[in-house]
Amino acid sequence: MSGKLAVVGLGPGDARYLTREALAALDEADALYGYGPYLDRVAPRSGQVRHPTGNREEGARARAALAHAARGAKVAIVSGGDPGVFAMAASVCEEMAAGPPEWRALDMRIVPGVTAMLAVASRAGAPLAHDFCALSLSDNLKTWELIERRLAAAAEAGFVIALYNPVSQARTWQLAHAFTLLGRHLPGATPVIFGRAVGRTGEGLVVTTLAEASAIAADMATLIIIGSRETRVLARDGKAPLVYTPRAVSSVPA
Amino acid sequence: MSGKLAVVGLGPGDARYLTREALAALDEADALYGYGPYLDRVAPRSGQVRHPTGNREEGARARAALAHAARGAKVAIVSGGDPGVFAMAASVCEEMAAGPPEWRALDMRIVPGVTAMLAVASRAGAPLAHDFCALSLSDNLKTWELIERRLAAAAEAGFVIALYNPVSQARTWQLAHAFTLLGRHLPGATPVIFGRAVGRTGEGLVVTTLAEASAIAADMATLIIIGSRETRVLARDGKAPLVYTPRAVSSVPA
Repeated sequence: MSGKLAVVGLGPGDARYLTREALAALDEADALYGYGPYLDRVAPRSGQVRHPTGNREEGARARAALAHAARGAKVAIVSGGDPGVFAMAASVCEEMAAGPPEWRALDMRIVPGVTAMLAVASRAGAPLAHDFCALSLSDNLKTWELIERRLAAAAEAGFVIALYNPVSQARTWQLAHAFTLLGRHLPGATPVIFGRAVGRTGEGLVVTTLAEASAIAADMATLIIIGSRETRVLARDGKAPLVYTPRAVSSVPA
Repeated sequence: MSGKLAVVGLGPGDARYLTREALAALDEADALYGYGPYLDRVAPRSGQVRHPTGNREEGARARAALAHAARGAKVAIVSGGDPGVFAMAASVCEEMAAGPPEWRALDMRIVPGVTAMLAVASRAGAPLAHDFCALSLSDNLKTWELIERRLAAAAEAGFVIALYNPVSQARTWQLAHAFTLLGRHLPGATPVIFGRAVGRTGEGLVVTTLAEASAIAADMATLIIIGSRETRVLARDGKAPLVYTPRAVSSVPA
């Protein structure tokens, strides 16, 4: 069987974030699968077929791509950011586990990319320079109670928190609840960063505090970083402030 | 002042992991600073001066680069992986905060890269596809008690754990202690991944269990991923197993 499947991370946005490995994987593919807006980021290549799918069709997309590769084609699934972080790589593994044996025999590889929290952090300074966690606020695939428990555990233990999927059309109240909950564990002055569409047209960055965070608008293109007790903000004349978490811990929370 | 400073992520290893943005930032620099082995990964360019420094000289390296840029040069500091994750971006922010006012006025930007945990995860499957944390096992800049507390909190709350800096010449017993501690919170069958020099010559990947993890050798080039209760291993005939954490939580730990 000569077919193969690559799950390719596009990074946060435009082509300047692509790695050479991702470019090569896209270039050699006979067919591309992906969420429509992600596919739109890939430069067209003649002879390459595109299969755009909707936002919440990960399982169906993975199955279609696996079946296509199993017929002998070179197939790539594109993913924003890194395919391994709240993205397509897990869907592909899950469908390989559940599907026909020939899917497990496929040459499948995952091409990593710059995930959104790294792009947002790079614009703000170095908020993720000390221990941190990445947490999806989506309660489609886990309970809200579990999300609350993880938020509390992370804040109490001193992890900086990167929130993926903070808001969607159906997810409207969760983010404000998360800020309220975190306010029980962290000072109101804790720095909070909202990065919207970082690396793409319309990029925006807002640095605020936990006490003020609920007043900032967020949407599906927003990634939020909530500092720890150690995270600091360095004001600069005429420039955006720098938000960073020092490498050394100066105080251990009680 | 025309000087500027870029803190550039090289990704995990060879040039195929470089983003276009990183390549452009390296190309326009008059001078490069960095840990010697990282500088060695950058293709030479005539007219570009290199300032290699030792492994534990982050503060001095950041100060030298900032002072050089403040004299009007285009300076780049190179960092393995992503500069924002346990790397040079925080040192630069810390030195900007402590140094002369002209350093804070500099045009400073951080160029993100593929950090080691994403590269290791991509080789293993999709272990970081659900909530996860990144934790440095180095107790140079925080206490061992705090590290233990964070390990316990992360395991109890169901985060997958990526361990940076698990071992060094001076850090010999900590990793085995960490596995013992995690064994009090997680089943012995929990998948553990050792990724060594991923993306470079001599790359190696070992998939084992928490019960067996202490028997696997690790060194300064190793990144370790410890699964959650949800993480699974999919065996494949004639191929490496796939380690993945499903998107949906099937069981909430008590």
